[in-house]
Amino acid sequence: MFIENLIKEIEKRDTNMYGKDFLLTWDKSQDEVEATLLVSEALKKLHANNVSTNIFDTGLAVSLFRDNSTRTRFSYGSATNMLGLTGQDLDEGKSQIAHGETVRETANMISFLTEVIGIRDDMYLGAGHTYMKDVAAALDDGYKNNVLNQRPTIVNLQCDVDHPTQSMADLAHLKDYFGSLENLRGKKIAMTWAYSPSYGKPLSVPQGIIGLMTRFGMDVQLAYPEGYGLIPEVVELAGKNAAQSGGNFKVVNSMEDAFKDADIVYPKSWAPFHVMGERTKLLRAGDQAGLKDLEKQCLANNAKFKNWECDEQKMKLTKGGKALYMHCLPADISGVSCKEGEVAASVFDRYRLETYREAGHKPFIIAAMILLGRFRDPAAVLAALDRRAKPRLGF
Amino acid sequence: MFIENLIKEIEKRDTNMYGKDFLLTWDKSQDEVEATLLVSEALKKLHANNVSTNIFDTGLAVSLFRDNSTRTRFSYGSATNMLGLTGQDLDEGKSQIAHGETVRETANMISFLTEVIGIRDDMYLGAGHTYMKDVAAALDDGYKNNVLNQRPTIVNLQCDVDHPTQSMADLAHLKDYFGSLENLRGKKIAMTWAYSPSYGKPLSVPQGIIGLMTRFGMDVQLAYPEGYGLIPEVVELAGKNAAQSGGNFKVVNSMEDAFKDADIVYPKSWAPFHVMGERTKLLRAGDQAGLKDLEKQCLANNAKFKNWECDEQKMKLTKGGKALYMHCLPADISGVSCKEGEVAASVFDRYRLETYREAGHKPFIIAAMILLGRFRDPAAVLAALDRRAKPRLGF
Amino acid sequence: MFIENLIKEIEKRDTNMYGKDFLLTWDKSQDEVEATLLVSEALKKLHANNVSTNIFDTGLAVSLFRDNSTRTRFSYGSATNMLGLTGQDLDEGKSQIAHGETVRETANMISFLTEVIGIRDDMYLGAGHTYMKDVAAALDDGYKNNVLNQRPTIVNLQCDVDHPTQSMADLAHLKDYFGSLENLRGKKIAMTWAYSPSYGKPLSVPQGIIGLMTRFGMDVQLAYPEGYGLIPEVVELAGKNAAQSGGNFKVVNSMEDAFKDADIVYPKSWAPFHVMGERTKLLRAGDQAGLKDLEKQCLANNAKFKNWECDEQKMKLTKGGKALYMHCLPADISGVSCKEGEVAASVFDRYRLETYREAGHKPFIIAAMILLGRFRDPAAVLAALDRRAKPRLGF
Repeated sequence: MFIENLIKEIEKRDTNMYGKDFLLTWDKSQDEVEATLLVSEALKKLHANNVSTNIFDTGLAVSLFRDNSTRTRFSYGSATNMLGLTGQDLDEGKSQIAHGETVRETANMISFLTEVIGIRDDMYLGAGHTYMKDVAAALDDGYKNNVLNQRPTIVNLQCDVDHPTQSMADLAHLKDYFGSLENLRGKKIAMTWAYSPSYGKPLSVPQGIIGLMTRFGMDVQLAYPEGYGLIPEVVELAGKNAAQSGGNFKVVNSMEDAFKDADIVYPKSWAPFHVMGERTKLLRAGDQAGLKDLEKQCLANNAKFKNWECDEQKMKLTKGGKALYMHCLPADISGVSCKEGEVAASVFDRYRLETYREAGHKPFIIAAMILLGRFRDPAAVLAALDRRAKPRLGF
Repeated sequence: MFIENLIKEIEKRDTNMYGKDFLLTWDKSQDEVEATLLVSEALKKLHANNVSTNIFDTGLAVSLFRDNSTRTRFSYGSATNMLGLTGQDLDEGKSQIAHGETVRETANMISFLTEVIGIRDDMYLGAGHTYMKDVAAALDDGYKNNVLNQRPTIVNLQCDVDHPTQSMADLAHLKDYFGSLENLRGKKIAMTWAYSPSYGKPLSVPQGIIGLMTRFGMDVQLAYPEGYGLIPEVVELAGKNAAQSGGNFKVVNSMEDAFKDADIVYPKSWAPFHVMGERTKLLRAGDQAGLKDLEKQCLANNAKFKNWECDEQKMKLTKGGKALYMHCLPADISGVSCKEGEVAASVFDRYRLETYREAGHKPFIIAAMILLGRFRDPAAVLAALDRRAKPRLGF
Repeated sequence: MFIENLIKEIEKRDTNMYGKDFLLTWDKSQDEVEATLLVSEALKKLHANNVSTNIFDTGLAVSLFRDNSTRTRFSYGSATNMLGLTGQDLDEGKSQIAHGETVRETANMISFLTEVIGIRDDMYLGAGHTYMKDVAAALDDGYKNNVLNQRPTIVNLQCDVDHPTQSMADLAHLKDYFGSLENLRGKKIAMTWAYSPSYGKPLSVPQGIIGLMTRFGMDVQLAYPEGYGLIPEVVELAGKNAAQSGGNFKVVNSMEDAFKDADIVYPKSWAPFHVMGERTKLLRAGDQAGLKDLEKQCLANNAKFKNWECDEQKMKLTKGGKALYMHCLPADISGVSCKEGEVAASVFDRYRLETYREAGHKPFIIAAMILLGRFRDPAAVLAALDRRAKPRLGF
């Protein structure tokens, strides 16, 4: 689509994202989700056309990573940089936060000249999303009381509940791959658990996928071995979404069933909901022995489901044997990154470049979330960038 | 004040800060201190009005933190970013500095394209300020000998002697709160020690406060339990300042005496001067057992003074029971960040937003110090920014 | 030289560096090496004249340091900043790379909005250069397959084979010091091993020097105690270069012989080639005991050659007793950074400022490598910067 057409499409969407955070996709209306995709697409096009998207003369983009990260860290760094913001990492190890100060205080202290705060907090079930809401309330309080000149927008870079920058990038990829959001209607996507020789992986990716893809009339099947369930509220929400969008949502306990005639497969490991709950308790108690025990139990349990691998055999079950394979990366590739894992090397190899392109949407999705959170009229901003046509590189 | 009036006020001040460092407030003339406040105020106003303050097209802002920091790190990051500089942290752990190279060499190696160097070095009594002067001499040498194209300005982000970015932010807050520097004349400020269940806190905040506030005709009372004295030279200087400015300076050993009729109270813990000296020796010798012993002794001694808490009772002693409570944050709040601490939760809560506003001056104070150190005609720079009126965010 | 003349000289050079990496100086033609020096010189002049060299509106400059670094880190940070890029460190400890993902994947994941990737990987013999070529191949693959909008340029910030940013900065210093590249013809440079109380220093500096300086008709003598040889292929290449350029290349086992009538001396410690090979094996095997043993052996062997110190006595052997002393810094200075080291304190002191000036070329050399890798017509870019004449600082 030409940039002018994208801008026209954005104008048509009824959004109320200015001054707001992006914490959960299901907090956003259909128009808002679509506007985010369209702004992302426009930014990606401007970047490819060597047109500057620099709209913040100065300003900080704070990041707080409570878990390791390569791709989200770089996506966030790229997104904020392309908008003209400067990253400042809140490294809790180098700070005085341990000193006992409150979330409310820290949130204000880091925000005097800050435009956006990106947070990854996915280690503790029941904690990440709550923490982000506490930060949001603190920023509201500071802004209202003239502590802050501006109210920074929070972007959820993965919490215990949702991983919106991932699921939105995945959606952008599907839109690209199948041509339009309309074309997703009726398509079957299998979000399935897969075996991995590790444990404790967050639930936010599968939750994010079923919470978002059910809104587009898709046939969403969530598959996992018994006992590997997700947060019940999110599963319930997925069902409601599907009913509303004219799609389907079904939970099954067989990878083969889910793969059958699927247009898209998303095989990925996660820890069972109840294990994550127990793990959170042990982590909080600092119970190292308990954690070791839990890990041992879990790995033993995982090992019963080594056949939950996305292999060539199962791929043959999909629509024409050619379902699109998706993954948030890095995948546990059998014989490459581990002995036995989520996906067979030959399957991964065939879709390797597609998974890279999938990941390539993330910086632009994050930039779109920021632009929509900090500018009242996103279409006008994009139109001005297009008119200005300042080269990103060179003169 | 309108920005034009601020600029006129700056023009009236006789300053000689170009090419100089900001290490101690008492190295600066009254006009220079006032100019720093005025430039800070102008920058804060421009920021609030969404006017760009970007004056460095490129250039590095080096930071060296030898102690943990959240607010100063973010204040420095914000200040340098709003001027267009890019932060580069000198992380001594990731460098080859242990290799045995000299301060002189390192100072030059990090400065080829550097405009400002911010240093926090407050752990060793007798060391931080000396280190900054060594860096300054090295930069002079490099600039004079054509090693460096420009002489970076050093900003003291806290040393063993002074904490000028804090005390100047505090002064800016007082100017705001009471309406003008003139209005501070005759006001009583109680800079008092307070109990904390920790030990080894630097002396630079109380020293900075008594060294600066005595210059404005204030009635400054320094209160601490016997044995918790500060560096004698700074105490002497505070006395001289008070005499010169027509104010008062008095040392007392009772929190109640200091609070009596005070307009402002600043209750904050610190380690006794002689303990910091002993601690420095033990740290240098790497004497872990000795440090443990000293800590134990100190905490036991501190515990004798648990009644040195800023509680509701003592607040009632202040002028109308309504003295302004100040703190550099994070405060040790009884029942919140510790069992028994510097301040009662109800007192802190009442002044919480004021302490945040107090902290909010710091980024602009640091930016003012840099602007004054790197530009010959600060008033002209601000006037040009105001005329240019480039939006900080948007078009 | 005036900037206009530098630009004319650049135009005369026949270069093909656009879209290419800078991994080894010997991959570059004579014209390309000269163009890099000229662009560096132009950028240095623009900086000194307070003219902005900001040519990237946005874009990331990724850095990956697998070894500690101060000066290269700051040089890279300065170089990328002066061009308008923003640094993003790939800290392997904070990433999910250990998770087992491939170099190919990581290279793409960090490059969606990246213009340059600087890599230091000098710890393992046989590994650093190979790693950089793997990254390069991955970027080619990603760019060709529309994963990446642009192909970032890789700059070798030191590998096991070459240290081109150092050797090129050294060459820039020699050009400055002796007035022109032509004037280097016939000059004798002694690249000699020197004693140091440490072990395991990379070979890339001496290899870089003999691989580059032999291309300018110089009389290059490589001196080391028996057993301290370099990678044979690089030594062979140096011989060929010398033959081709009309210079000389000779390996000797006496510091005195090398110093005799030398115009330039470059005394620096390194580990023997075969030791680095053994060390790589032990490091890979995680054999701590073996590494300890090897270190002990090596230090004992080093200690036999304590007389390989650049002292006043040996300096007297050089041309007029006034050879230019060079070092990549930090040097092991006898009585300063160690008891007995590479150079006597009095010699180092006499040349201290020259070594700082030598180091001062590095940021501009790196910036030149980036500019040449990312812009088709470097002369036009510099001419446009000169015409634009935007102040780097101020208005």
